[in-house]
Amino acid sequence: MPNPTAAMLVIGDEILSGRTRDANLHHLAQQFTAAGIDLKEARIVSDDHDAIVSALDALRAAHDVVVTSGGIGPTHDDITADAVAAAFGVHIGVREDARALMAAFYAETGREMNEARLRMARIPDDAELIENEVSAAPGFRIGNVYVMAGVPSVFNAMLARVLPTLNAGTPLISRSVRIDRAEGDIAGPLRELAREYNDLAFGSYPFRDGDSFGANVVVRGTDAGRIDAAADRLAALFG
Amino acid sequence: MPNPTAAMLVIGDEILSGRTRDANLHHLAQQFTAAGIDLKEARIVSDDHDAIVSALDALRAAHDVVVTSGGIGPTHDDITADAVAAAFGVHIGVREDARALMAAFYAETGREMNEARLRMARIPDDAELIENEVSAAPGFRIGNVYVMAGVPSVFNAMLARVLPTLNAGTPLISRSVRIDRAEGDIAGPLRELAREYNDLAFGSYPFRDGDSFGANVVVRGTDAGRIDAAADRLAALFG
Repeated sequence: MPNPTAAMLVIGDEILSGRTRDANLHHLAQQFTAAGIDLKEARIVSDDHDAIVSALDALRAAHDVVVTSGGIGPTHDDITADAVAAAFGVHIGVREDARALMAAFYAETGREMNEARLRMARIPDDAELIENEVSAAPGFRIGNVYVMAGVPSVFNAMLARVLPTLNAGTPLISRSVRIDRAEGDIAGPLRELAREYNDLAFGSYPFRDGDSFGANVVVRGTDAGRIDAAADRLAALFG
Repeated sequence: MPNPTAAMLVIGDEILSGRTRDANLHHLAQQFTAAGIDLKEARIVSDDHDAIVSALDALRAAHDVVVTSGGIGPTHDDITADAVAAAFGVHIGVREDARALMAAFYAETGREMNEARLRMARIPDDAELIENEVSAAPGFRIGNVYVMAGVPSVFNAMLARVLPTLNAGTPLISRSVRIDRAEGDIAGPLRELAREYNDLAFGSYPFRDGDSFGANVVVRGTDAGRIDAAADRLAALFG
């Protein structure tokens, strides 16, 4: 059975204006790869209702799992939950289970439950909460879409909750071979090797180290023995 | 006149597998923001012909400028140039101007022009070359699409060439105010302030610092006087 496929939707003006460098995509990519879930595509859109709805509709139709990050805080620019409800055509309002989770946390930590915080308890009907121990305000799952926070510590906490509930595939494993020769000098034999081991994927990632060029060649697949054999051949060819 | 809009397409399995953390999007976002070009959307796809063509067609129809990064090297997994030619429905082959640029550089640096390197001289008909002084193999512009390398030093060199040729807009300027109170405590008054200054954009970016929560509130717009006034009001409200 092929691995499940996934997509990520990062929501936030701050990434596209260059103010913040996204960290969640990289973390999700590593976690999904280890779990055998193939992250096929990512999109980054601004805090714009129509842009979120349209990206979400495209991604959820095309993939088994969609993860969003960002836009579920208490401020006026946090519009993700409403956009997700609109994409699914369901009602959204303050949900008692979400409110109770937050109220308990705020009572413990001396914060007040005000109108702004209450916005974070707005959850689409029939969605399932994704709890987080960092700041209590939950994310949620609706259909195949997992709506999570943008703050990396909270995103990571939510992902740790979600990951064990997903259908895992066969983990992709990889070996990387550093070759201190320019990509243009290895491309021919590398192509031949990739043809011979056509059950594996060969990626070549060039780098520059001072004045010299090199490439990390990464062999990916699901069969450790085949990967080792290919990596050994690589090392022998270009070592 | 509104600012030109832009989108970025990042091409590469290595980003989606979590092996590499993309750096080009962040750099492009900062450079475009400074130039008054509004980066509205980014997509990351794997080294897959159909995925590249379909993302490219969506983005080039929706935005004034599209920048791609990745997939134009000499190895078998570099398929961007062919996908771009397919998207535009034009022929692609080795172009003499590209070959000459590379041959001169290789002669100087003692590399050989082999079959693999010659692949990097494959440029769609009618495309205009984007030269790069780092490694000579050019990117290219076709229509409103700028096809550039994935290696950050080369991407940056190509962007430096391209930027002065683009229609600049009114640079977006911003001021950031650090507020050491939880977002939920400032969201109400912040919303009022954002309504009053409705010619500006207010973004709130929460952070966690040890055990306490805070937010950086960023005020963005094109009128420095208005931005200063709003930032001063913010500091007075929550200082």
